[in-house]
Amino acid sequence: MARLPPFRTFAARRVARVPRLVRMSTALLTDHYELTMLRAALRSGAAHRRVTFEVFARSLPPGRRYGVVAGTGRLLAALADFRFGPDELALLTGTGVIDAATAGWLAGYRFRGDIRGFAEGEPFLPGAPVLAVEGTFAECVLLETLTLSVLNHDSAIAAAGARMVQAAAGRPVIEMGSRRTHEEAAVAAARAAYLVGFDATSNLEAARRWGVPTTGTAAHAFTLAHPTEHDAFAAQVAALGVDTTLLVDTYDTREGISTAVAAAGPGLGAVRIDSGDLAAGVRAARAQLDALGATGTRVVVTGDLDEHSIARLARVPAAGYGVGTSLVTGSGAPTAGFVYKLVEVDGRPVAKSSVGKATRGGRKDVLRRHDADGIAVADLVLPAGSTDGPVPVELDGPAPAPGRPAGTSRDRPLMAPLVRGGILADATLAGPEGLRRARDHHRAALADLPAHARDVTFGHPCIPVITALTHP
Amino acid sequence: MARLPPFRTFAARRVARVPRLVRMSTALLTDHYELTMLRAALRSGAAHRRVTFEVFARSLPPGRRYGVVAGTGRLLAALADFRFGPDELALLTGTGVIDAATAGWLAGYRFRGDIRGFAEGEPFLPGAPVLAVEGTFAECVLLETLTLSVLNHDSAIAAAGARMVQAAAGRPVIEMGSRRTHEEAAVAAARAAYLVGFDATSNLEAARRWGVPTTGTAAHAFTLAHPTEHDAFAAQVAALGVDTTLLVDTYDTREGISTAVAAAGPGLGAVRIDSGDLAAGVRAARAQLDALGATGTRVVVTGDLDEHSIARLARVPAAGYGVGTSLVTGSGAPTAGFVYKLVEVDGRPVAKSSVGKATRGGRKDVLRRHDADGIAVADLVLPAGSTDGPVPVELDGPAPAPGRPAGTSRDRPLMAPLVRGGILADATLAGPEGLRRARDHHRAALADLPAHARDVTFGHPCIPVITALTHP
Repeated sequence: MARLPPFRTFAARRVARVPRLVRMSTALLTDHYELTMLRAALRSGAAHRRVTFEVFARSLPPGRRYGVVAGTGRLLAALADFRFGPDELALLTGTGVIDAATAGWLAGYRFRGDIRGFAEGEPFLPGAPVLAVEGTFAECVLLETLTLSVLNHDSAIAAAGARMVQAAAGRPVIEMGSRRTHEEAAVAAARAAYLVGFDATSNLEAARRWGVPTTGTAAHAFTLAHPTEHDAFAAQVAALGVDTTLLVDTYDTREGISTAVAAAGPGLGAVRIDSGDLAAGVRAARAQLDALGATGTRVVVTGDLDEHSIARLARVPAAGYGVGTSLVTGSGAPTAGFVYKLVEVDGRPVAKSSVGKATRGGRKDVLRRHDADGIAVADLVLPAGSTDGPVPVELDGPAPAPGRPAGTSRDRPLMAPLVRGGILADATLAGPEGLRRARDHHRAALADLPAHARDVTFGHPCIPVITALTHP
Repeated sequence: MARLPPFRTFAARRVARVPRLVRMSTALLTDHYELTMLRAALRSGAAHRRVTFEVFARSLPPGRRYGVVAGTGRLLAALADFRFGPDELALLTGTGVIDAATAGWLAGYRFRGDIRGFAEGEPFLPGAPVLAVEGTFAECVLLETLTLSVLNHDSAIAAAGARMVQAAAGRPVIEMGSRRTHEEAAVAAARAAYLVGFDATSNLEAARRWGVPTTGTAAHAFTLAHPTEHDAFAAQVAALGVDTTLLVDTYDTREGISTAVAAAGPGLGAVRIDSGDLAAGVRAARAQLDALGATGTRVVVTGDLDEHSIARLARVPAAGYGVGTSLVTGSGAPTAGFVYKLVEVDGRPVAKSSVGKATRGGRKDVLRRHDADGIAVADLVLPAGSTDGPVPVELDGPAPAPGRPAGTSRDRPLMAPLVRGGILADATLAGPEGLRRARDHHRAALADLPAHARDVTFGHPCIPVITALTHP
């Protein structure tokens, strides 16, 4: 895809190093009950049983055709800082949450188990596990809240963002929603948006931590702070060059565009419109710029855009979109609905069984089955370990390609090792390099879904999840 | 209000000390364009003009009767760490966001201006400023994103939480939504919930940082990790005492309650129901517990509760509520809609004037006018500095109480100094003590609103905002 950035975009060049600060323990980003469960389980002996917890979503938000796994890299980074030091233990014992025996156990705590999961950026469907955490009950039960917080937030943003990128159909999309969400959630939202194909963010901390390119020029306040709009535009051009983007709707958009071209000349990079009827505004701005000879000046739009309004702007000559509120709030679905459920204890499948919240027991693997054209047709949920050889699950869908057996090259395993014995399977997954790879993976994996998956109208999950477990 | 905590609640005793870690600069929790505006304004001279930015909401979420200002204490704490050290400057210059002159200016940056604002916890109406940031354009423009991120997030949670507390009508409400939001947003959400009257949170980091009481006992996984439900309940009682809360719906709720009383005896603290028809479940549990002689055992409910479902449970003998997703996502309104607008430059009112986004220029103060019974009747927005004497604004509402002039004791000024010359007006505002006082203030201020304000059905803003400015 040849894309011209409509805003001036700066790539962060030196981002991979760790900020020079003592990293806070993440261990108290946890629910109280995980510590009381630990305390009781240490006493009963349940603490030492071998278990598997799985993370999955029971459904997608209404109308969505797929979800997107996001946050995996952040979770792996947070896991490295999940430790109970003197400060954490003082808080927990001082408030009576835990007793001395539990504090002693926690002082030596490091997660030493295994984590398997979908690649970050992978599209997912409800009902299939996207992450499995395995080890002793004690070491795994403590990770519930942190795991869900990270995945639920980031995946909600990524799922909304992926639809916006599809709606933009190749035009650049910039994330600029930091002001509409918690200041740390903003950094994660910028990361999730980049993961699913946004071109840049306004958030500077996302550049420092994750290497996301940042962009931005000026707000209405900059114009208001100068005696005239022309003064403001001239000041901006003097500082940032004629390739900058001038915000032209502070007073009167038509006059603003004339003033912008007068201040910058016909080589002006772009004008930005942030209010009014955006479709009409873009058309009028394009015509006016062309009449002024500024045929290369782009028209970019911002202002309460979401995937639907972006789709409606496809027919007007907008050169790019800035998205804020709707991205960081998940476009109506601010949390992804992942749960963290115990599915196996000492090799025995377990499941909650009361009304309305059934969980399927047993450790699982997931394969994505594709047709002869390489298009995904179903996700298969199978007992863990049964996917090493050909998978004999029959589908009603397309027949295998001639000469290719069912369940070999056309089945892609979705669960891969992320942590083995407490050690990251690939240390780069927790940093900017992992994010860049996840971005590439997302693009490729989304392209393998059926075409209707990428439509932003109301729809159903794009492929079925077929569960073939021998145990109940 | 005499409230019995239905969950065992631990107050955090040692929370006021600062965690032992080098605090991260908050200066990059900022949008790129604030730095490019600074760069251009330093060059044009606009950087040094005296300005006022005001924070206000243009509207409330549909159906809401008031908003709640929250996050002020967090903002003031973050402001103290808003500095550009070598790391921040290296990122900004290395990526070309700023030039050398701007870096030199930023190296010495500390906010040295003034901040006035509503007390944290104050109910607010749209159209009136809740915060004013004053100083040079350069020092104030940099605070836009951080200010809005903190206030928009925390106020959204607080507004939703306040309605849940009202719906609970004196029954305890516990915040347990950490897993459904970003892990740091979770800490802020627990804080905001406590601010508006929640009794406790599940989030342990909120205890460490803000002194919020925490609570929790066990999840379904704890039951599943034991051979039988009775084994699990006995283990929990052995570790946490008979006053604990047993989660009884892992397999069959009726059997679970019998097993709970068998394991703990009739002195069991509480049972928790997390699924199924909650109203029917509470009634059945109450009757069963009474029949078993466990008349003092409380029934607490959790599971996708919001203000509306809590209101519907008023008629059943639930002893308390745990609220998760709906609290941390603002119950349908995950961001408060605050904007940060330049309203005055060198004593001259300024305002954006294009379609649909008008802003009223000039520095303002806000008074809340009350009737003779002490009930709020309107918020008056006046030119700043005009509220020192009696305020001659005539209202169509209730007449003044006999013998009391209009606009004296019945008018409460809502804007108070928070920062003067870069120094906190009251250092305790940024810590746990400030949160406790804000909680008290919220309760008192909400009680002064008209009774219909506290109804959780769909309604209109509960009192009008009357703007009386002499300038346009």
